Amino acid sequence: MTSWVDELKAELGACVSTAPEVLAAHAGDKWHASAMPEAVVLATETAQVAAAMKFAAVHGIPVTPRGAGVGYVGGCVPVKGGLVISVAQMQRIVEVNPADGVAVVEAGVLTADLQAACAELGWFYPPDPASRKESSIGGNIATNAGGPRCLKYGVTRAYVLGLEVVLPDGSILRCGGRTHKNKQGFDLVGLFCGSEGMLGIITQATLRIIPAPPARAALHAGFPRFALAAAAVQNVLQGGHLPAAIEITDAFTLRAARNHLGPGVLPEDAQGHIIIEIDGQADAVATELQAIAEILRATGATEVVTARTESEVEAIWQLRREFSYSLKATGLTKLNEDVVIPRSQLVALVEFCAAMEQETGIPVACFGHSGDGNIHTNIMVLKDDAGRDIREPADALVNRLFAWVMEHGGSITGEHGIGIAKTPWFPQAIGAEAFALHRTIKNAIDPQGILNPGKMGL
Amino acid sequence: MTSWVDELKAELGACVSTAPEVLAAHAGDKWHASAMPEAVVLATETAQVAAAMKFAAVHGIPVTPRGAGVGYVGGCVPVKGGLVISVAQMQRIVEVNPADGVAVVEAGVLTADLQAACAELGWFYPPDPASRKESSIGGNIATNAGGPRCLKYGVTRAYVLGLEVVLPDGSILRCGGRTHKNKQGFDLVGLFCGSEGMLGIITQATLRIIPAPPARAALHAGFPRFALAAAAVQNVLQGGHLPAAIEITDAFTLRAARNHLGPGVLPEDAQGHIIIEIDGQADAVATELQAIAEILRATGATEVVTARTESEVEAIWQLRREFSYSLKATGLTKLNEDVVIPRSQLVALVEFCAAMEQETGIPVACFGHSGDGNIHTNIMVLKDDAGRDIREPADALVNRLFAWVMEHGGSITGEHGIGIAKTPWFPQAIGAEAFALHRTIKNAIDPQGILNPGKMGL
Repeated sequence: MTSWVDELKAELGACVSTAPEVLAAHAGDKWHASAMPEAVVLATETAQVAAAMKFAAVHGIPVTPRGAGVGYVGGCVPVKGGLVISVAQMQRIVEVNPADGVAVVEAGVLTADLQAACAELGWFYPPDPASRKESSIGGNIATNAGGPRCLKYGVTRAYVLGLEVVLPDGSILRCGGRTHKNKQGFDLVGLFCGSEGMLGIITQATLRIIPAPPARAALHAGFPRFALAAAAVQNVLQGGHLPAAIEITDAFTLRAARNHLGPGVLPEDAQGHIIIEIDGQADAVATELQAIAEILRATGATEVVTARTESEVEAIWQLRREFSYSLKATGLTKLNEDVVIPRSQLVALVEFCAAMEQETGIPVACFGHSGDGNIHTNIMVLKDDAGRDIREPADALVNRLFAWVMEHGGSITGEHGIGIAKTPWFPQAIGAEAFALHRTIKNAIDPQGILNPGKMGL
Repeated sequence: MTSWVDELKAELGACVSTAPEVLAAHAGDKWHASAMPEAVVLATETAQVAAAMKFAAVHGIPVTPRGAGVGYVGGCVPVKGGLVISVAQMQRIVEVNPADGVAVVEAGVLTADLQAACAELGWFYPPDPASRKESSIGGNIATNAGGPRCLKYGVTRAYVLGLEVVLPDGSILRCGGRTHKNKQGFDLVGLFCGSEGMLGIITQATLRIIPAPPARAALHAGFPRFALAAAAVQNVLQGGHLPAAIEITDAFTLRAARNHLGPGVLPEDAQGHIIIEIDGQADAVATELQAIAEILRATGATEVVTARTESEVEAIWQLRREFSYSLKATGLTKLNEDVVIPRSQLVALVEFCAAMEQETGIPVACFGHSGDGNIHTNIMVLKDDAGRDIREPADALVNRLFAWVMEHGGSITGEHGIGIAKTPWFPQAIGAEAFALHRTIKNAIDPQGILNPGKMGL
């Protein structure tokens, strides 16, 4: 044990752990990389985070902040060792206040728990990353998390009014506030949203909540060609509808789902598939559901299934989740890339992926949030005769995918962030000037470079 | 004429002006302060902005960026002289693209012009500052402009996907992009939104547009007490409605409006008044309007007037505009402060203002965007016998108002920004840590301090 750890334990007490199982549990996230920290601070209050950060600043120790640790890009892997500061145990919902349209939560609160607390009062915190039952608000903010409903409701940033952040020198910053509008100076709240723990450690957030829409409904539909499903996305929007979510699924995923789920669940022979959710006032939702169904039929949907009750709607979302499970059930490892393309490029992206698949024999499965062009593109890693992943050709396809996305005005990540995983492509993706400005900001706020080092190439 | 001006003219040609009327036209905005620049660059393209900025960087000349010049806080007043770079003539709407849900515009495009271009295609750019017919997108972004509809739709930031920005060294940064989601690194777009021309000069923006809601409707209602109007705001939201706008008006403003408009236009004797606009699918809007009217009646509204046609809705918004004109028609100068308070503090704010009025004899008129607590609080400057404004006691009330707002978790500006006008209160409003971080960011990005100097106390 290095001497600084003893000193930190003496200063902070029982919240500092060096137990091997604790170190191991804080070495990685859902990505494949991991690295052991030398110590972990399991903070239960902001003062501990600040004291630990100040200690690290004085001693020049690398600090990796951590929320629930369920990211997809290695963003909380302590690649330089040192200290992990976890806010996962800071789980107090301080306040849910409909009169102000505000919720105040500690960073470790799970997103689904906040949503449940709001729902009890008839209120709504919209951002809905698929991970919401296991990801924390702090992590959601640090990655500016999205989700299907962000089409209508916007990403996490749109709901963060105020933040408490521990800065790299250990001082505690409070920025923004509890008002729904705030034009007091630069947008510091926005700067920390999506900063992936590289500029400060988020310890508490004041969030905007809105009245829960009283009703929701959904539908799903199969199409004989993917291009028709993509056209339906455009036609629904062009028809003056802004659904909460429009999800699209390609032929490969549908095949996998049919294999996994058996016959009768999905429209047979569909090569493209759409799920749409709408919400609002009850009467409105019923009428709009019909109007949207009509648009889908007019665009060539072979079968449109509508869902009006909560359980029917939930069944459709279960189907969406099954797409993911079905890909896993193929037995192949999937490299899930969360690329975003301008919406008009949906068909081109899927055709590009199909062409790569045909050329290389490596399957590529596309499904996701078509309304905002955020398509989860899964490159399926084939196995050799010994059952080992054949990674190199799959990794080469990731390279080609990202190059195509950049050429077509897209973004290589819409939800997961850069972390370690996307660092190799990051400078090219944002350009030299934007990368230089990242360096400028990082150096100004964290001049020692001790906060979440080794990420984004900064 | 100083020698650098000649040199700049030689380099940039006819877009550089030193004509006295041009200098005078670029000396101020709608606030009372003004200062003459030594030269003005009337840019028609980004390259000119970049060249002028680079020239200023090399020569250490202060630069004040300027859009349409209709701000309320002196944000574009060239207090240090030097160069004004105006983007007001960069008025190209490069693209309105429903298939991508994107519009690309130069910074000088007037917000209303963009909205009209979108509307022609059945699409919608929601942010609606009252100034939208005369304010530019660049200025809207630099101040993160709001407006009534931001209750439902969010402020300008929610619609900015990508920016082209000339940095203080004259380099051209492109950040963000044309995708609706983008998690590539820090939120640089957000950093420039609301930066009031102190970190860079916005020259072009890629904006998110959404399908235009096919229908809208509105209502207005009078209440015997302001507190009932404020309660109605809460009851509408608690009822699961999220209107596009909920505007509230206090007794003083209503009296002024009755004097100005004559009898029969406004509910007689109302001491509080609400305007609500909803939008969405046609059937839905009709039903929801009734439901909201019912909530208002149940909360004590004495008269509820509904508007279903475009002209009826427009008439209600005209009434809202008349409130402003009515205050002007009192003959008194109004100090219009755009404070924001947590929504639950609406009644407390108005009671605080009434108490100040009673104590000092200086009228205070409150009206504005009650849904998000953004209440335009107008301190009416009395006149002496010679007809001159008696400013000092009015200014003292501004001080007391801001102190009260800060004590009650509010923001001293929700829409207008800091500029010169709010600089004296700015450090206290955001706190020492946040102010220090402003300094850090400003110094890192503009180390010479030449871009829009003399604002925010930075």
